[in-house]
Amino acid sequence: MNPIVSVIMGSTSDLPVMEACLNFLDSQEIPFEVNALSAHRTPNKVLDFAANAASRGIKVIIAAAGGAAHLPGVIAAATTLPVIGVPIKASISMDGWDSMLSMIQMPPGIPVATVGLNASQNAAILAMEILAVADPTVARKMAEYKAGLSAKIVKANEDLAKLDKWHFKTN
Amino acid sequence: MNPIVSVIMGSTSDLPVMEACLNFLDSQEIPFEVNALSAHRTPNKVLDFAANAASRGIKVIIAAAGGAAHLPGVIAAATTLPVIGVPIKASISMDGWDSMLSMIQMPPGIPVATVGLNASQNAAILAMEILAVADPTVARKMAEYKAGLSAKIVKANEDLAKLDKWHFKTN
Amino acid sequence: MNPIVSVIMGSTSDLPVMEACLNFLDSQEIPFEVNALSAHRTPNKVLDFAANAASRGIKVIIAAAGGAAHLPGVIAAATTLPVIGVPIKASISMDGWDSMLSMIQMPPGIPVATVGLNASQNAAILAMEILAVADPTVARKMAEYKAGLSAKIVKANEDLAKLDKWHFKTN
Amino acid sequence: MNPIVSVIMGSTSDLPVMEACLNFLDSQEIPFEVNALSAHRTPNKVLDFAANAASRGIKVIIAAAGGAAHLPGVIAAATTLPVIGVPIKASISMDGWDSMLSMIQMPPGIPVATVGLNASQNAAILAMEILAVADPTVARKMAEYKAGLSAKIVKANEDLAKLDKWHFKTN
Amino acid sequence: MNPIVSVIMGSTSDLPVMEACLNFLDSQEIPFEVNALSAHRTPNKVLDFAANAASRGIKVIIAAAGGAAHLPGVIAAATTLPVIGVPIKASISMDGWDSMLSMIQMPPGIPVATVGLNASQNAAILAMEILAVADPTVARKMAEYKAGLSAKIVKANEDLAKLDKWHFKTN
Amino acid sequence: MNPIVSVIMGSTSDLPVMEACLNFLDSQEIPFEVNALSAHRTPNKVLDFAANAASRGIKVIIAAAGGAAHLPGVIAAATTLPVIGVPIKASISMDGWDSMLSMIQMPPGIPVATVGLNASQNAAILAMEILAVADPTVARKMAEYKAGLSAKIVKANEDLAKLDKWHFKTN
Amino acid sequence: MNPIVSVIMGSTSDLPVMEACLNFLDSQEIPFEVNALSAHRTPNKVLDFAANAASRGIKVIIAAAGGAAHLPGVIAAATTLPVIGVPIKASISMDGWDSMLSMIQMPPGIPVATVGLNASQNAAILAMEILAVADPTVARKMAEYKAGLSAKIVKANEDLAKLDKWHFKTN
Amino acid sequence: MNPIVSVIMGSTSDLPVMEACLNFLDSQEIPFEVNALSAHRTPNKVLDFAANAASRGIKVIIAAAGGAAHLPGVIAAATTLPVIGVPIKASISMDGWDSMLSMIQMPPGIPVATVGLNASQNAAILAMEILAVADPTVARKMAEYKAGLSAKIVKANEDLAKLDKWHFKTN
Repeated sequence: MNPIVSVIMGSTSDLPVMEACLNFLDSQEIPFEVNALSAHRTPNKVLDFAANAASRGIKVIIAAAGGAAHLPGVIAAATTLPVIGVPIKASISMDGWDSMLSMIQMPPGIPVATVGLNASQNAAILAMEILAVADPTVARKMAEYKAGLSAKIVKANEDLAKLDKWHFKTN
Repeated sequence: MNPIVSVIMGSTSDLPVMEACLNFLDSQEIPFEVNALSAHRTPNKVLDFAANAASRGIKVIIAAAGGAAHLPGVIAAATTLPVIGVPIKASISMDGWDSMLSMIQMPPGIPVATVGLNASQNAAILAMEILAVADPTVARKMAEYKAGLSAKIVKANEDLAKLDKWHFKTN
Repeated sequence: MNPIVSVIMGSTSDLPVMEACLNFLDSQEIPFEVNALSAHRTPNKVLDFAANAASRGIKVIIAAAGGAAHLPGVIAAATTLPVIGVPIKASISMDGWDSMLSMIQMPPGIPVATVGLNASQNAAILAMEILAVADPTVARKMAEYKAGLSAKIVKANEDLAKLDKWHFKTN
Repeated sequence: MNPIVSVIMGSTSDLPVMEACLNFLDSQEIPFEVNALSAHRTPNKVLDFAANAASRGIKVIIAAAGGAAHLPGVIAAATTLPVIGVPIKASISMDGWDSMLSMIQMPPGIPVATVGLNASQNAAILAMEILAVADPTVARKMAEYKAGLSAKIVKANEDLAKLDKWHFKTN
Repeated sequence: MNPIVSVIMGSTSDLPVMEACLNFLDSQEIPFEVNALSAHRTPNKVLDFAANAASRGIKVIIAAAGGAAHLPGVIAAATTLPVIGVPIKASISMDGWDSMLSMIQMPPGIPVATVGLNASQNAAILAMEILAVADPTVARKMAEYKAGLSAKIVKANEDLAKLDKWHFKTN
Repeated sequence: MNPIVSVIMGSTSDLPVMEACLNFLDSQEIPFEVNALSAHRTPNKVLDFAANAASRGIKVIIAAAGGAAHLPGVIAAATTLPVIGVPIKASISMDGWDSMLSMIQMPPGIPVATVGLNASQNAAILAMEILAVADPTVARKMAEYKAGLSAKIVKANEDLAKLDKWHFKTN
Repeated sequence: MNPIVSVIMGSTSDLPVMEACLNFLDSQEIPFEVNALSAHRTPNKVLDFAANAASRGIKVIIAAAGGAAHLPGVIAAATTLPVIGVPIKASISMDGWDSMLSMIQMPPGIPVATVGLNASQNAAILAMEILAVADPTVARKMAEYKAGLSAKIVKANEDLAKLDKWHFKTN
Repeated sequence: MNPIVSVIMGSTSDLPVMEACLNFLDSQEIPFEVNALSAHRTPNKVLDFAANAASRGIKVIIAAAGGAAHLPGVIAAATTLPVIGVPIKASISMDGWDSMLSMIQMPPGIPVATVGLNASQNAAILAMEILAVADPTVARKMAEYKAGLSAKIVKANEDLAKLDKWHFKTN
């Protein structure tokens, strides 16, 4: 089983946030790998990883980082694979503004597909939407997943309907 | 009893914030309904709801959402009823700036009447002020309510007057 | 002809921004008045105005201000009419953040229905949506207005369709 | 004993922050009064208070508020006494930016002397610096107080000097 | 020739910013279509467009919007195609913070791949990187494009080398 | 004629903003001096100036600065006179946030009475309000000045009343 | 043993943040001193300290402060030694924006080398990089330290490799 | 003549801002080189440059960049030389917040000595302060330079003294 999504983080301290990403890929039966790389501690390995990812069969890269979050941008510099960036709200950060801006404001030529702060599950979903462009099986999974999203709303409405603490609530 | 105010939220996780809204409407004997809708999970239902609200007798819509808070704006796109937006400070958000700006900065033609962050009670009061334009009973209730607001200040002054831990306090 | 919408601004320097509001009300044949009041230069007059507006037949108040924009909040303190706030990006301001936050973050009990920065036309539309709760003629006008909004998109599509500077554009 | 500093807050919920102000005035034997007023719940009383403060012997007013913090500005509108504003970081606020900007960005003609977020002790010190312009006794107290500020640094240096957990620390 | 990338904007006023996107797609011989849609003026058409895009052969959607920029999020709600969002710094906006946060902070389940403020060319490049996952021709084009990026740096170095206005410049 | 207000700026580039301050003091016949000092270029002179200001008869100090605006804070460190800070929006600054925060967020013990961004006239008015605590002549001037503030509103109302470009304007 | 790095903080409350700095210098056998100074409580001592630091053999100064963080800037005003600023997120601050901007936005002529919020270890590393310009022993230590940084990534990869809670994880 | 300071920018569009840096180094007779490198267009060359800079005799690196400004951080990852970062306010940026935060918020182990927005002259001065640690000639130059800074204040005072448009100006 070869991985087609590669998930990169800068430190295991990002793992609690990134678990939602990994869980989602797993639940959808998407082969993935997880590695730690750092744009600042192992810069050459980042470039090597990025340069070789496509030839190893990787289709999409997800990179998470906090603070001055250079990791997804530096990966994007050395690959033509789509790179999804997950800005992390690190313990000491400028409330997440630093990681978000460090990822999203990339210069012309080297985009990073940035998702919301700590939005690691959405990174997995975006990765699958990209895979689905080429893979009808994944496309079908995504269609099912999105169709299922309304179930949460149905459930919420049932819960709200049961509430009877108000006299002038009519439903 | 037909509802005249419709309160919409994107998830039951918004309920703790929205209870102050529902409690206020209830205490003022305003018939209301509570439903869950999502601009992103159930977009067609949102448009249906908005398009039919007026004909069901709804006069004002209150919509709460967090993060990229599109719900009140999308509702406003499909109704001419006044839509009040309550920006929610979600667990992972950019400290509420995202939900506030996503609601208030609507394009020309489709305003959302935005209240303060998590200010769900104020949304209920604003809804009643709008109802009061057409309904003298509600107008009288609002006049009584606003007249009563100073009572909290009277009480605060009594509490402050009782404090005697300072020698140079003169009142 | 008695005014039913009262538009208040703190200075004639706000007039260029507020003209879109006045033009819209005028085009929709909504009788309105325009006055200057200041929460800081004429505070007693603001409270008098607010206290008497309803008895003069005013249904909705629109108040615009920049900087530490207290005007709509102070008006709202002395009336039960709905007050719509238009935050103005004044020549020296903190890029509009000051006026927006000064309006929207009102304390419990005294909401201001805040619209977007300089969004004076939207204030007029919101005022009409409120009037429409009680007035079927206004409701019909708003329905027509909103139905017409898509015309701008139709026109935009025609303009985009005509563009032929690209070889790989297919429409 | 007539008060010469009047401390105003919008609610007893501001009291924990404002205690440092009251304690300081008390320790310096400055007669003061403490009252609750609200620009939105008791606007007329605010204007009455402000208009009459000088004739009652008040020399400086300190006003604290959170959120859309209009209280010091509205007081300043109706008095020529110096008004010191203390922006409060309320439980639900935009992290204090709302109260700070609502106070500091006052229009021409009606300044509020704004101090730092929750900086209630500094408000008391500023009040005394203002009183000291006319009162040599207060001036002497302030000179003594400021001379004593370095004592905290002397103590800090003694504490730092005692630390011996590092081998290469030379002092 | 069927389009495989669909570029959507809310108004022709976004065209000057979006031209870099269209020019890039054209230069790379990617068939594309350009349309105007609005989440607020034509919400049903947005949902119809999104629901049918995949079956028309569209592989990637690029959506640009300013202010409370709901367009890409609402499109993403009704398709499983990857949606790239381009936040636009509109003439009256909160300096672009509103459009960026309205796009990037999407709720779980419905990601928008957000690029930098006004970064329309990067949106085109990201679209091609996504297409390249399935299409070796596009992958080759992207590899060539990225290889060519360093040419701009080579040119910059030549320009910098020619500068001789400083005596102590050594290169 | 001895100066009683001392106005300090860091550079003549601040003069255009500070002229409103100087003009106001002059129009009110308040003797003042104007000097340039820098917390960073002439730090010892700043401390000497501050330490000696009171004995020279200065009653209030107004200090303007941009960027990392330390000048008013460093002056306040060496005097017990009230120090008013005017944050300047310098040509390269973080849009004025830097100068405002550098002034207002002073530590306990050393307040700076901060006014709005570039609000140099308000600094002069605040200085006079402080002088008025001890000087009935200045107090009378300020009472007259504040009474005259409503004249601008009267004039604005006259101007607004004359506008007749709208058919449904009723006043 | 003479100190070559001088670490200054405004209060012992900064010590918990600064310990990482002191620990690092100690582990690298760099002689250092630790003192408390305040730009506002002991301004003359700050200037004396700064003026004499070089002649005492100090090579680099590290200064930490929160809020309106003037300490590193005022030190830099009176020395030509490089001054490293550590912005501290104080208990009441504007979330650290105040201390960061107060340090980094220094006027022309007096730079402060600012590191990240609470990044006291990085201040120590930067100090050593500066020392290493003149001292081959320190240069060698820094080379070893930086070489060791990748070890943390190696360890992280080992930890990630061991995780086996996912079926579709391939590494 | 071997360069001892290496100035790097990402594009010649940064040259107008960086000229103040180059002019200052030149005026102080510090041999320098100027090159263009990009963390995203030429990542391998950036790492090579950084790894070899010290052995070529470079003592300090100054790197300027705008937007998601990764250049100084990536250089710092591959050298133990001190790296000074100059955040540039690029034509499309988030008003400079992106470049500042992308530089200053570096992770533990890899500091970037960040100066103010567009503060390229200060970067040159900081570089010389670092060189001065090892080089008495440079130290003497810096002492002379800093001594000369007060001249600008002397001149400003002369200019302010000449102004005679106010009657109550006393100096």
